[in-house]
Amino acid sequence: MNEDVLRRLGATLASRRHADPAVSYTAKLFAKGPDAILKKIGEESAELIMAAKDGEADHIVYESADLLYHVMVLLTFCGLSIEDVFRELHRREGVSGIEEKNARTAK
Amino acid sequence: MNEDVLRRLGATLASRRHADPAVSYTAKLFAKGPDAILKKIGEESAELIMAAKDGEADHIVYESADLLYHVMVLLTFCGLSIEDVFRELHRREGVSGIEEKNARTAK
Amino acid sequence: MNEDVLRRLGATLASRRHADPAVSYTAKLFAKGPDAILKKIGEESAELIMAAKDGEADHIVYESADLLYHVMVLLTFCGLSIEDVFRELHRREGVSGIEEKNARTAK
Amino acid sequence: MNEDVLRRLGATLASRRHADPAVSYTAKLFAKGPDAILKKIGEESAELIMAAKDGEADHIVYESADLLYHVMVLLTFCGLSIEDVFRELHRREGVSGIEEKNARTAK
Repeated sequence: MNEDVLRRLGATLASRRHADPAVSYTAKLFAKGPDAILKKIGEESAELIMAAKDGEADHIVYESADLLYHVMVLLTFCGLSIEDVFRELHRREGVSGIEEKNARTAK
Repeated sequence: MNEDVLRRLGATLASRRHADPAVSYTAKLFAKGPDAILKKIGEESAELIMAAKDGEADHIVYESADLLYHVMVLLTFCGLSIEDVFRELHRREGVSGIEEKNARTAK
Repeated sequence: MNEDVLRRLGATLASRRHADPAVSYTAKLFAKGPDAILKKIGEESAELIMAAKDGEADHIVYESADLLYHVMVLLTFCGLSIEDVFRELHRREGVSGIEEKNARTAK
Repeated sequence: MNEDVLRRLGATLASRRHADPAVSYTAKLFAKGPDAILKKIGEESAELIMAAKDGEADHIVYESADLLYHVMVLLTFCGLSIEDVFRELHRREGVSGIEEKNARTAK
């Protein structure tokens, strides 16, 4: 049930894809374009790294949510969705980690 | 249903938290410790940025999956889970983007 | 001679370390503290990656300058300087790349 | 005098631009191409952030050197050099931080 939050978030993001930038933070980010979104991904991953070094659980969760949020903004911008990411993760199931890593190295 | 993949992945990661590093890529990463995991987060976010600049949908999905995977490895390492992130995203629902951003700026 | 710009920049940064935040962008960044500086490093490296993907020489130089600038802000904040980095690079001279890499992998 | 290390490093990197990948770590990185170099920039900036959070001076200097090294590898790959970055930093001299920041925001 909790995962439904991603589905709802995905729907909200899609609705803001072409909304008035004044309406929301996300609409503004979409209007700024892809580089602004990617800059946020760089920034949020740096913040997650810092939070993890600080070792504060609440902060780690907060920054993970920020990062996941901005990855979903990027996916939406590109006409993709978190469902596509789920499908990719599902595809990897049954492939052991080491094998998958080797497959990756080989590609 | 697709979101179940995250639940299964979370369970798999938890089972590898103290597994023999020889068993899998993830067990090895856990054994290396937090800095190795955080380095991967920096690396995977760089790769997602590159994939987005290339504009190849399959690659964007692939790198998003890699990044989400490693965020989940970090969460597991810290005794947290993706469910905690869902809760945080759920908490934010009803808070409009701009308001949330302002709340963030103010903190 | 051109390298003198780093020496002058280092001196300017040191002078702003405890200056009034209203005085300059850098004084403001110092006042915000280390996490604000580190966030900028994450952001600027993301921007350099994007500039490189775009392949525009001027932009790559611009973002490299931004990144180097913020690394020097970090060093200054930590009571270090770019001279310390030069000493480290000098120490590595004579160590072939592969050997240095091996030394790194082994540490 | 210490800055000469950058000039020597620049010359070494240029000499390895088309060298046998077996020769050195850098020749190998050049052979792998731009994405491998950019991935290193993402990785090294993550490592610098981690070192700064740990607050160990030696480690901060070490990771700063690694990051600067890989920025120079990128510049060399793109037919640019650290001298171009010095010129850009020199151009900014005389522009106060706040004004430069405003100029940046406006662009």
